[in-house]
Amino acid sequence: MLIDFVGLGSMGLGMATSLLKAGYDVRGYDPDVARVEMLCAQGGVAYTGAKELQADAIVCVVLNADQTRDILFGEHGVAAQLCKGGLIISCATVSPAFASEMEFEAVTHGLLYLDAPISGGAIKAAEGRLSIMASGTVEAFTAADPLLNAMSETIHRLGDRAGPGSAMKAVNQLLAGVHIAAMGEALAFSVSQGLDPARVVDVISASAGTSWMFENRAPHVVESDYSPRSKIDIWLKDLGIVTDIGASSGLPLPISSNALIQFRSASDAGLGQEDDAAIAKYFARAGGVIMPGDY
Amino acid sequence: MLIDFVGLGSMGLGMATSLLKAGYDVRGYDPDVARVEMLCAQGGVAYTGAKELQADAIVCVVLNADQTRDILFGEHGVAAQLCKGGLIISCATVSPAFASEMEFEAVTHGLLYLDAPISGGAIKAAEGRLSIMASGTVEAFTAADPLLNAMSETIHRLGDRAGPGSAMKAVNQLLAGVHIAAMGEALAFSVSQGLDPARVVDVISASAGTSWMFENRAPHVVESDYSPRSKIDIWLKDLGIVTDIGASSGLPLPISSNALIQFRSASDAGLGQEDDAAIAKYFARAGGVIMPGDY
Repeated sequence: MLIDFVGLGSMGLGMATSLLKAGYDVRGYDPDVARVEMLCAQGGVAYTGAKELQADAIVCVVLNADQTRDILFGEHGVAAQLCKGGLIISCATVSPAFASEMEFEAVTHGLLYLDAPISGGAIKAAEGRLSIMASGTVEAFTAADPLLNAMSETIHRLGDRAGPGSAMKAVNQLLAGVHIAAMGEALAFSVSQGLDPARVVDVISASAGTSWMFENRAPHVVESDYSPRSKIDIWLKDLGIVTDIGASSGLPLPISSNALIQFRSASDAGLGQEDDAAIAKYFARAGGVIMPGDY
Repeated sequence: MLIDFVGLGSMGLGMATSLLKAGYDVRGYDPDVARVEMLCAQGGVAYTGAKELQADAIVCVVLNADQTRDILFGEHGVAAQLCKGGLIISCATVSPAFASEMEFEAVTHGLLYLDAPISGGAIKAAEGRLSIMASGTVEAFTAADPLLNAMSETIHRLGDRAGPGSAMKAVNQLLAGVHIAAMGEALAFSVSQGLDPARVVDVISASAGTSWMFENRAPHVVESDYSPRSKIDIWLKDLGIVTDIGASSGLPLPISSNALIQFRSASDAGLGQEDDAAIAKYFARAGGVIMPGDY
């Protein structure tokens, strides 16, 4: 069975490798040819765009809605290379409305579509241990299940149409983004009060103030390591999706809207390509507080 | 050894009972006589304010700084009933500057002072399993250690003067308050998108968007149970302390200041005496979204 895999970033390459390990043929595409070569070194082949063998499924792990639409149904869209009744698994963080639109396009082309945002990070992706927040028709799930099992540890089955998968991912990103911003403010505040940030991480991780993101990101601040595992600018996109959904639903989102403003200001201040934990530096600098390793 | 215990609320009564279990004599005070009777039923005695036996230590578990100052050093302050060199353990959430001021007062009266905010909730208090974020002199710790051991599972030793204990508690409250507000917004958002909140709690609790407060408070929203375990109005006080510290330090705190505004608005809307998870209802109502059990 041949899978076209689009997007071989830190998540995608791990997922594609998991499919290879499970015995699938994987044909990969990424604008960065070095990433395609990494897949080929694991036993994959490069997608050339020429009229080749038709694939049975596409897994699409790109950045956003525009890339997803273009890759799937644009001028050189890969959906045209899918066999009749083939499956699209779409993993980018997008709005529920966009996921529904893509599902409609897929059905129009006689294809199956699974709304399947992912969570877990690069390490779990490489180990085939992601969480997938999925929704789609019974037929789409039936076709997708063996692939999902190869790539993930947990499959959340959230509904029989596209949309709820993306909605749940948006809920997760709302919380995750706010928690990172809160982590940054809390560590800047800690340093302003003379507390040792390493001690703060120890104490808070065992207290009611902790969060998954606090425990994951606060150590980057303690170590002053802002090499990007996930960038500040990702939150302009993901919290932007959240607040766009809120705006179109008429639901005010004061907490996540404010977090988005802070990430945007940090990006404007030149931190957009740093690790998202650098929001702590942004808050500290605004108050003349010097974080470990800063300046 | 006789301990004067001031403040027999849901935390205080459990702590006082832990001291009784450890063999201390405990003389309790609370404006609610029913709470004092509950202590007496466990073997404690009532503090009458008369010239009685001098206590060896005071544990003060009141609401805020004003109450702490008044109870300890006010006109009828209990510090005057302490034996020479006696110990004050002060547990209210206050600013580090206020904790330093109280320590100075205590030293002036020839007393020992431990800055000792608590975390963990009523259940852990009753089990003697609190976390205590403590700072103070070596002498204060030496005197306090047996009492702290009776009341707590974890003692964080944060410095040799009053202040760092309260600073760490403020960091915890900053995060906890923001996380509760984020939980509320996320669940209102979930319902607006047609997601089942019970399912959201399951999925998010196993995802990167989770927090201690999400896992603790979101079930209240799912069950529509807003009987107050911790009230909305508590956050006006605790986030108020956080933002006051920020203001006096010149550090902008946009995330926690915004959360404070939301709790204040929810209180103004009449929700102040409900459980703090009711912030979800407040956000939902603002967008015409109906939460489980609301209206």
